[in-house]
Amino acid sequence: MTITSYNPRTGQANGTVQEMSAHDVRDVVERASGASSAVAAASPRQRRGWLHAVAAALVANTPGMVKLAELETALGYTRLTAEVSRAAGQLRFYGDVAAEGSYLAATIDHPTSTTPGLARVNQPLGPVAVFGASNFPFAFGMLGNDLGSALAAGCPVIAKSHPAHPLLSDRLAVLARTALLSAGAPKGSFDIVVGYDAGVALVRDEGVAALAFTGSQAAGQALWRIANERRTVIPTYAEMSTVNPVVVTRAAAATRMEEIAEGCVASFTLGSGQFCTKPGLVFVPAGTAAVDAIGKALRRASLDLVMLTEAIAKSTAHGVEDLMFSGARVVELVEVSVEGWSAPAAVLEAGIAALQDGSRLLEECFGAVVVVVEYTDIAKLAAAVDRLQGSLVGSVFTADEDDPDATACLSLLSSKVGRLCANDWPTGVAYTWAQQHGGPWPSTSAPSATSVGAAALDRFVRPVTYQSLREEWLPPALQSTNPWNLPRRVNGVLQPRGATS
Amino acid sequence: MTITSYNPRTGQANGTVQEMSAHDVRDVVERASGASSAVAAASPRQRRGWLHAVAAALVANTPGMVKLAELETALGYTRLTAEVSRAAGQLRFYGDVAAEGSYLAATIDHPTSTTPGLARVNQPLGPVAVFGASNFPFAFGMLGNDLGSALAAGCPVIAKSHPAHPLLSDRLAVLARTALLSAGAPKGSFDIVVGYDAGVALVRDEGVAALAFTGSQAAGQALWRIANERRTVIPTYAEMSTVNPVVVTRAAAATRMEEIAEGCVASFTLGSGQFCTKPGLVFVPAGTAAVDAIGKALRRASLDLVMLTEAIAKSTAHGVEDLMFSGARVVELVEVSVEGWSAPAAVLEAGIAALQDGSRLLEECFGAVVVVVEYTDIAKLAAAVDRLQGSLVGSVFTADEDDPDATACLSLLSSKVGRLCANDWPTGVAYTWAQQHGGPWPSTSAPSATSVGAAALDRFVRPVTYQSLREEWLPPALQSTNPWNLPRRVNGVLQPRGATS
Repeated sequence: MTITSYNPRTGQANGTVQEMSAHDVRDVVERASGASSAVAAASPRQRRGWLHAVAAALVANTPGMVKLAELETALGYTRLTAEVSRAAGQLRFYGDVAAEGSYLAATIDHPTSTTPGLARVNQPLGPVAVFGASNFPFAFGMLGNDLGSALAAGCPVIAKSHPAHPLLSDRLAVLARTALLSAGAPKGSFDIVVGYDAGVALVRDEGVAALAFTGSQAAGQALWRIANERRTVIPTYAEMSTVNPVVVTRAAAATRMEEIAEGCVASFTLGSGQFCTKPGLVFVPAGTAAVDAIGKALRRASLDLVMLTEAIAKSTAHGVEDLMFSGARVVELVEVSVEGWSAPAAVLEAGIAALQDGSRLLEECFGAVVVVVEYTDIAKLAAAVDRLQGSLVGSVFTADEDDPDATACLSLLSSKVGRLCANDWPTGVAYTWAQQHGGPWPSTSAPSATSVGAAALDRFVRPVTYQSLREEWLPPALQSTNPWNLPRRVNGVLQPRGATS
Repeated sequence: MTITSYNPRTGQANGTVQEMSAHDVRDVVERASGASSAVAAASPRQRRGWLHAVAAALVANTPGMVKLAELETALGYTRLTAEVSRAAGQLRFYGDVAAEGSYLAATIDHPTSTTPGLARVNQPLGPVAVFGASNFPFAFGMLGNDLGSALAAGCPVIAKSHPAHPLLSDRLAVLARTALLSAGAPKGSFDIVVGYDAGVALVRDEGVAALAFTGSQAAGQALWRIANERRTVIPTYAEMSTVNPVVVTRAAAATRMEEIAEGCVASFTLGSGQFCTKPGLVFVPAGTAAVDAIGKALRRASLDLVMLTEAIAKSTAHGVEDLMFSGARVVELVEVSVEGWSAPAAVLEAGIAALQDGSRLLEECFGAVVVVVEYTDIAKLAAAVDRLQGSLVGSVFTADEDDPDATACLSLLSSKVGRLCANDWPTGVAYTWAQQHGGPWPSTSAPSATSVGAAALDRFVRPVTYQSLREEWLPPALQSTNPWNLPRRVNGVLQPRGATS
C-alpha cells in the first residue's frame, strides 16, 4: 500500500511513499524501547545538545525543506520559511528548558523523628508517539513542539508520517535521525511510522508510553479512545481546539470597530483559516455596525484560499452550509477559483438564541469562516458564553481607555479557555515559559497540559519518590552535591540553582 | 432506600442512613457550583484557615469519632486515634502548602519585540467529587488527602458517604460543614451524597469538574469509565494499587533474614492487610531459608483478623483460593474465629515461572496475604519484575554493608512503582513535600499525579495564560506587586517569595 502526495494548488500527484506493516512498526518500537534507558540517563545538557543539533540541521536545509513543503501544503514560501525558523527556535528552547532543570521538580525531605528521608524527581515515561498537524508541517509537525518537549524530557520519539505531507515527513525523519546520531544521541531516539494502520498499531503497542496529537477532534478523540482501551492505558495529549470565542465590548465597537474588523479578518483568514487558534465566534454589541464592518473588511481582503487537502476543502465548504442550516446567514462570502483545492471564506451572522447545546454553531469550522453574534447586554452574553464548549484561546477587545465592561468580559471567557488575550487576536502562539496551549475539554484531552511553552515537558514525565535510599543509590538530580546544579526544594524550601542540600 | 451500618466484630447492624435521590444530588452540586467562585477567589491563606479549622474540629471530637469508627470498621482504638491525629495533620499540611503558593506556578514573561506579555497561573477546576476509602475512614476518607488538597487548591468538595462507615460519614460531614462555615468558608464548600446511585449521578453531573477516588481497581476503573463517557470528560484520579513488589537481596537474606521476615509479617498483616501499600509479592533468593522464615514469623505473630466488610472478608478468602489455583502453595495459614467478619492470614509460595501475563499472582489480594517467590539470579528476577503490573510502591532489602545486588534491584523496581524504598517496608505513607502516592497504570489512573504530599494540589488546578492584559485585569497571583508574596518565575528565572516583577 502506498500514500500519494498531492499538490493542493493543482490537485496533481507529487509522488508516493510506502506504508509500513505492523511488523515494521513493532521493529521501530523495539528500537525506541532499546534506546529509552540511554535517552533517560543522558543529562538534560546532553539532550539540549541533541535538540540544538536538529535545529541547526533544519536551518541549514531551509530552502529545500520549504520547497518540498510548499509542493505538499501550498502554505506559501514566506510563511513556510518563517515556520522553519520558528521550529528551530522551539527545539532550542525545549533543550534550554531541560537544561535549566526545573522540569525535574527535584524535591528532598530529610528524615525526621517521625518521617523517613524522601526524595522525589520526575522520570521520563519512555517512547512517545507523536501525531503532528497538517497545518504546521514544521512547528507542530514531526519536529515540532511535541518532539522537542518529549526528547528534552528524556523520551525517545516515534512520529507518524503525515498523510498530507508524506514526502516532507520522510525528509524530516532522515534529517532528524542523522542530526541526532551525529550529536551523540542513541540509535532509536527518533523514528517514523508511515500509514493509517501503522499509526493505530503504534498507539496500541505496549512499548509506547504516551501519545501526543495535534489535529481534528474526530481523530484526536479516536486515538484517545484507543489509548484508553490498551492493557496498559497511557496518557493522551490531544490538542484539538473548538471555536475560540472573541468578545468586542460596546466601548470598543463604538471607538475602533474598523480597526477591529480588519484585525478580525486578518486573523480568521490567516493560512486560509487553518489554525487551531482561529477566532471562530465573535460576539459584538447589538445596535452597532459591527457585523457589517467585519463583512466589508472581508470583501477588501486579499485572499489565497487554497486548502491543505481535498478533504479539508470539502469539509470547510460543508461547514458553511451546516452553519446556515443551523440558523446562520451569510454576511459576506468570497470564493476563489483554482485548479486544486479551495474553499470559501465567509462571515456569517447568527442570533444569540441559536447558540444552544448540540448546535453546529458551537463547534469549530476549520477554514476561513467566522460566525458573528450580536449581544444586547452582558447578562445575555454571559448566558451564551456559559453554553460554549472549552476552547484553546479567547480574546476580549476593549476601548483604549477605561472600559466599564472589560473586567466582566474577561472574567466570562477565562473559565472557557486555556489562554485569554486582551486586544490581541488569538492566532499567534509564542513559545515561552508562561505559555499555555491547551484548554478545557473538548478543545484538549488533558486540559491541565500544554503542548507549547516550557510546561510542555511536564507531559512526558512521572514522579518517582525514593525512600531511605543511600546517597550513592540516588539519581544525580537528588544527590546532596547537586551535580546537575538544579533548582530544588529541600525540606519545603525552594533552593535556587547552585545550592546543595 | 437505606444503607445499613454493620459492626464487623459481630456482624450486627448499628443503624441505617437514608440514600439520596438524583434530585438531592443535583441540589448538592448546584450549591457547590454556586460556591465555586468564592472558594476560588479566597486567598490561599484564607483557605489555610478553613482547613486548620476542620483539623481543630476533628481533634476536639476525637473520642466520639473514634468510638463511632471502631463500631463500623473494627480497626481498633489505638490505630483510629492515631489516624484522626494524622488526618488533622494532613489538613493543616495542605493548607500550609497552599499558603506557600508554589502550587499556583505563577509565571510571568514580559513582552519583547517578538512576543506579547504572557502570564500563567493555575486556577481551581471547580467542584471535586471525592470517593474515600473504607480502610482509612479518616486519613483517606471523607476528610482525607483528597478533600484537603482539593479545598486547599480552591475547589469545593462533594464527598460520597462510604457504605462501610455510613454513620461516621454523616458525622464527619456535619463536623466539616460546621467548622468550614464558622471559619468563613462559603456555604457549599463541602457537602456529602449518600448511596450508590447518588455516587454515579454525582460523577455524571456536568457541574462536577474532577473525580478523586481511593479503593479497589474494579470500582476505580468503573468510575474512570463513567467520567470518560461524560459530555465534558473530567480528570479521574483513582488510586487503586496492585501487588507492591519487594525484593530481598542474597546478601540481605544471608545476614538478617529473621529480622526481614518479622518486618514482612508486621507489614503485610498491618490493619489485617487492608492497606493499598501492603507488600503483596516478595522475591527472595533461592537456596535460602527465606520462605520458611516468613512462614514461621507469621505463626509467631499476634493477629486480629477482623475485616472491614463481609464482602472484603469473602474476597480475601476467595483470593487465597484463587492464588492456590494459580499455582501457589500454602506455607502458613492462620485463621481466627470471631462472630463477625474475619479472613485468613497467609504466606503462600509460587514458582517464578508462574508469574505470567494474566495470572492472578500478578494482581492484588486485599487482606493479610503475601506471595513469596524464589529467584535464582538477577536475570531471572529482572524477567519476572518486567512482567509485573505498575504498583504504588516497592521495596528492596539489602545487607547493612556493601551489597553487590542493591543497585540492580533498585533499578529493576523503579520503573514499576511510584515510590521506591530501601530497607523500609512500604506500608507507611508520610505526607511531606517529596511524597509520591501514585504509580504506573493500573495501580493509579493518572500515574503522574499523587494523592498524598504537596503535589496532591496539582490534580485540581489547570493553568490559564493571560496575554497582554493590563495590570489591573490580572489575578492577584500575577500582579507586579506580588500581593500574595508568591514564589514566581519571571522571564524564565525563579524568584523566591518576597520578590516583585
